[in-house]
This record gives sequence, C-alpha cells and structure tokens, in this order.
Amino acid sequence: MREFKTLTPYRKALKLLLDDLSEIKETEELHLSEALGRVLAEDVVSPIDNPPFDRSAVDGYALRAEDTFQAREYSPVGLKVIDEITAGEESRAKVEPGTAVKLMTGAKMPEGANAVLMQEMAEREGDIIRVLRPVAPGQNVAFAGEDVKKGEVVLKKGQVLRPQDLALLKSLGFKTIKVKRKPRVGVIITGDELIEEFDEEALKGGKILESNSVMLTGLVRQYFGEPVFYGVIPDDEKAVGEAIEKAKAENDLVLVTGGSAFGDRDFAHRFVKVLFHGTTIKPGRPIGYGERVFIMSGYPVAVFTQFHLYVKHALAKLVGARNYEVRVRARLTERVSSQLGRYEFVKVWYENGEARPIKKKGSGIISSLVESNGYIEIPEDSEGYLEGEEVWVTLY
Amino acid sequence: MREFKTLTPYRKALKLLLDDLSEIKETEELHLSEALGRVLAEDVVSPIDNPPFDRSAVDGYALRAEDTFQAREYSPVGLKVIDEITAGEESRAKVEPGTAVKLMTGAKMPEGANAVLMQEMAEREGDIIRVLRPVAPGQNVAFAGEDVKKGEVVLKKGQVLRPQDLALLKSLGFKTIKVKRKPRVGVIITGDELIEEFDEEALKGGKILESNSVMLTGLVRQYFGEPVFYGVIPDDEKAVGEAIEKAKAENDLVLVTGGSAFGDRDFAHRFVKVLFHGTTIKPGRPIGYGERVFIMSGYPVAVFTQFHLYVKHALAKLVGARNYEVRVRARLTERVSSQLGRYEFVKVWYENGEARPIKKKGSGIISSLVESNGYIEIPEDSEGYLEGEEVWVTLY
Repeated sequence: MREFKTLTPYRKALKLLLDDLSEIKETEELHLSEALGRVLAEDVVSPIDNPPFDRSAVDGYALRAEDTFQAREYSPVGLKVIDEITAGEESRAKVEPGTAVKLMTGAKMPEGANAVLMQEMAEREGDIIRVLRPVAPGQNVAFAGEDVKKGEVVLKKGQVLRPQDLALLKSLGFKTIKVKRKPRVGVIITGDELIEEFDEEALKGGKILESNSVMLTGLVRQYFGEPVFYGVIPDDEKAVGEAIEKAKAENDLVLVTGGSAFGDRDFAHRFVKVLFHGTTIKPGRPIGYGERVFIMSGYPVAVFTQFHLYVKHALAKLVGARNYEVRVRARLTERVSSQLGRYEFVKVWYENGEARPIKKKGSGIISSLVESNGYIEIPEDSEGYLEGEEVWVTLY
Repeated sequence: MREFKTLTPYRKALKLLLDDLSEIKETEELHLSEALGRVLAEDVVSPIDNPPFDRSAVDGYALRAEDTFQAREYSPVGLKVIDEITAGEESRAKVEPGTAVKLMTGAKMPEGANAVLMQEMAEREGDIIRVLRPVAPGQNVAFAGEDVKKGEVVLKKGQVLRPQDLALLKSLGFKTIKVKRKPRVGVIITGDELIEEFDEEALKGGKILESNSVMLTGLVRQYFGEPVFYGVIPDDEKAVGEAIEKAKAENDLVLVTGGSAFGDRDFAHRFVKVLFHGTTIKPGRPIGYGERVFIMSGYPVAVFTQFHLYVKHALAKLVGARNYEVRVRARLTERVSSQLGRYEFVKVWYENGEARPIKKKGSGIISSLVESNGYIEIPEDSEGYLEGEEVWVTLY
C-alpha cells in the first residue's frame, strides 16, 4: 500500500514553500496608462509638494477674509476687483484691504489674499463685487502640500495599482512607473483520460473533458502572473518529464495537474525534489512542491483549492504584493463540521454579511465552485463552526 | 448669482439615469480562454449530464459493495480481478459476486459494480486483491449528473466570468461563449489650466497636472468598459462642443470632466439636453447627465465619487452585469457626521471587519482616495453614524 506516510500541516508546508521562493528582481518601467493592476516595485516618494503653492480651490475672488467679517445680506461689503486672470494664469497683483482678484480654480493665490469667495456667492457691478456673507480665513484655498508633501512616501512597494493610485502618480508629475515583471507560470495538464473537445463516444469510453487549463490560466492572470500553457500531456513518464523540464527552464513557476498521488500514472513527483508532498489540506491533500514546481491534483475542485491555499500566496511572494486578498467577517447560516487533523477549505456564498456553506461535495463537482464566491478555512485542530458563528471569509 | 436651484436627490437621479439607458444588444462569441472578466450575454443551459455516466472518482477497483461488508483487517475478503483498464478506456466486463475490475479515475463504472475501492487500500497478489475494510455502496463513485444535470441553467446572464465559471463551461463541452460587447466610453478632459507633463514654471503660473484621464480610463476598464481617450480640450466652447459631438457618435457613453458647474468656462452642459444637473451627492454635486453624456467635475475626488455613484451603475446596466459590487458589513472605528440633505460618499479603509473613515477632505486631495479601499453612503435624511455602529462598505 503506497500512501502518504505523514501529511505536512498546512501552515508548515506554506512556510516551506514561501521560504523557498524569492521575490523577482526584474522590473518594468510602464506608462501609467498601462500599469493598472500591476504591482509597484518600489516605494514612491513625492518629488513635489502638491499643490505646489497655495491655490484657489474654486472659481471666484481671492480676498482678505478680514475684509468680509462684517458682511451681511442687508449690509454687503464692497470690494474692488484689481485684477482678473483666466485659467492657468498667475496674478502679479497684491491684494490690499478693500480689494480682490478674480481667479480660476487652481490659480496661485495672489499676495495678500488668504481666502476665496466662490464666484456664485458674489454680486458684481463693473469692477466692484458685493460680498453678502463673511468668508473664513483659508476658505476655498488648497494649501501647498495639503494633498502630498515633498519627500513623503505616497505609495508603498507591493501596492497593486488602482485607478486612483495612477491618478496620484500623474498629479505628481510621473509619466511612467516601475512595476514588477509578471511571473511566468507554466501550466501542464496531464492525463490520458482527458479530451479537449466534446466527443460523445469518447466520453462513453471514460474520457473526461479537460477543464483545469482554462481555470488555472485564469487564476494565474487574476493573481499577477502570465500563464504559459504547455498543453495536455499523455500519461507517459518521458513526456511528462520533458514537459516539466522545459517548463521549468522557461518559467518562474510550473503547475502540473494530474498525477499528484502515488498511482501507476503519477509520474510528476519523480522529476521534482519535493519539499513537501501530501499536506493536511482538504480537498487537495496530495499536493507536492519543490524546485518551483507544484504537483497538483487532477480534480478541478482540488486544483482550485490548492491554487488558493498555496499557489496564490507563492505568486504574491514573487511580486511582493500586499493586500491581495479581501477578507470579510460573516455570520454562518448553518454549521460546518470539519475533520480533525485536516485543514479544510469550505466554499461559501457570501452576501449581506452572511456566509452560506455550499453543500455539494466532491473534488470533481465544479458547480460547487461556480455557486460560491469565497471560502473559510478550518484549521487542523478545529471540528468546525456553529450556525450563527462569526467566521472570516476570503472572497474570490 | 447662478447656482443649482434645486438638487435632484441621489436615488432619483440614479433612476432617471438607469431608465434612460438600455442594455447593449450586441454580443461577441469568445473562446473561453479570452472570456475572463467578461459578462455573460445569456443563460447557459447544460447540454449534457455531467458526469455523463456513473464514473470512478479514484484509481482503484470497481466491485460490489456487499462483497466487502464482512472484510476486516484480520479477515480480509479476496476478490478476483477479471479486467484491468487504463485511463480513458471502458471495461466490457460484468462484475459478478466475488470479482472486481481495476480502473482509473473517470472510467465508466462496469456493469454490476456499485462502489470503488481505492487502489492504495487493496493488497494485490496476482489476479487476487485482498480487501481489508468494508466499502459502502456508492463509495468513490461519481454519479451521472451529480455535478450538472442536462437542461439545468448553470450560469446566468449577467455573470461576470471567473476562472471556475470557464472551467465549468469547458467541462460541459463549450469551446466558446457569448458575452456582451464591451461598452465604449469616450473620455474628454477639459480645462485650460491642465498640463500633461511636469513643468515647474507652468505649475507656478497656476497650471495643474491633469490626472483624471488615467483615473477614468482605469475605472472604465475595471467596470466592463473600453475607454477611448479624446485628450485634453481647452476651455473653448466650440472645441468642447465638437469633442462631445464626436465622442457621442463614436461611443456608448461619454464622460466629460471639468465644466460641470455654471462658471464662465463651464460649457459642456450647453451641448447636452440634461435629465439632471446638480444632485445631492457630496462630493460631486454638480454632476449632469443627458443623452448618454456625463458632465463631471474637474476635481479628482469628485470625479471618483461621481464614477462610483453613477457611472459604474450605468456601465453595469449597459452590459446587464450582476454582482459587480462587493459590499461588506463593518464596524466604524469613529463617528462620521453628514450634512442633512446631502448624500455623502465617505471614503474608508476596510480591514479586519472595521471601517476607518479617511479624515482628509477636499475634492482635490487624491491621497484620500489612495488611502481608502471602499466607501460608505450616508443618505440625505441621516446625520451620520456613531463610533462602533455597523455600516455597509462597498469595496473598490
């Protein structure tokens, strides 16, 4: 009887894996418009104060707030407009008591002014404006450095770049940004039983429509990687070995599905010096890893689990990504039980603060993945959770 | 004084907007490997039972469970192996009492067998296996239709396709899938004060580094759209009008930033028959919409807010997307107050079940967007929430 003599505990195997990998050094300098979703390769320090000077935050009249303190609707204060500039211009005028400068949003505050009256709040006649209400010092002024100060770290290494991050970079004068090269991930599917196209006769003969390739290449894309698909390889020791060698040489990581157990056709582990093979995760127990190669199950649900519990974290380590998971608190709608000694991956549907466990079991039941949008993890020493208990859900 | 006479309540404006738009009819037939993140154009009905037949879920021996009921470690039951098939083959043998068929994962169950003994659990000598423990009927069998039944709706129209959805489709024999065409979204940035590259002298003169283009094109991509950037247009009525006409003709939606208020340079609304102009949202109040054109603010934080409160939902409507938002329950780490009559968009940092409101205010303060990962919405009739109160956070 060939079986796993001992299962490596989940966290221990994860540590072995992450300790074995190091962050990719290579970076790419991308134009901001191409950097969405990429991972920042280094801290970004602002080269400037932003705004660089005190600026008007509205279209209106720059003035001395103290001139308006007595302004009332029944007793407006009149100020003389001594200069008028359009967008992108700077006024050289000095605002003295009783005067104002008309300016546009973003214009540098003229000397002497300390507040801006919104254009819509002024009544104008010729070069006189009537102020009906007091304006506070600093009102409608965007002060220098208020958004970002020169020398401040505005984005940290490992940030997955979002639209607003790109906007901040652009507002500070950056045109390009340094991101990590995408890890290349070779995907090898093995199994004589697999077919790529519908064929009723073949299915009757025991063939199975292969579905791991499109799932894994999609998951790799979701988590920072560039998948390279090596096709479906027959259960032939030489062919599997050659595919693994080739993929290892060409990629940062290699994912091999099928053949992770110790059956007659399970060749993959013969080509890899494994750091672990067989862990406490359920489903997906037979996973092996070594030399940047993951030996994964053939069953889609096991493969999906192995990806989320191991491969995802490996990819994040390669690019140094932070905050790549969304974890939420949820109330379980019913109890889930778990086998002691196994680290269970329980698929749930999360909605409205509640997590509903998916009942369908079985490593081949892809619909259980489709009907879920997240998972809870139940460690080896827990027998599960009660109905109504609060749990952490990781969304996918 | 020109101002908004009345502000349209947020929900009312949203309804006007969504009622004005209809779902895009055009679809694209994409290969599964290209469909990640796209929106399903119609319900998908399974053409087959999956599995199509009762199958072995493991490598092992198909047998009659009742033959093993007496099996014990100290008194094993011997069965004769009458056939042996490899992966993707079908056995024609009939399993009679006292016999078994060796088969591989996925193989069709041979006639007469109702359970499978895992290979690792059998001791074999020649054509005899010794069974040490009883096997239950149905054990290690994947029954026909257990994953998906023929005729069942497996994915609904509007589903945003994930890796596991693609895997399910592949496992049912689909090679391509019908998704909605991406909405084309024209992005027009207006403002004489804007520059595209760092220029210290220009900044001193009141110019501003434009950042809305990269933010909006990124947001459009995140929410199903294909952005088309029309550049930065000067504050010239004719130029703005021409850009809007051109973009309208070429796109499903048009986003114009700058010029949403009623200042001297605010031209955009002159070219659009608006359904609303000025709503209760804060920030971002001056938003206007009509004829598939959004007239948006120039300030990045207001633009971001307007996108999430209006444009995102418009894009989802165009493609018929479901479940495009992640909303979580969170406990506020401190109170937030809100102005009565305004629908406030409060940026928060969500982590570990808690939402921390971002203190930085101001429509130009992009760092407040960078430091947040979600928002809470405070309706017009609420003055805000207390510290420790549970709120809904929409993540971004």
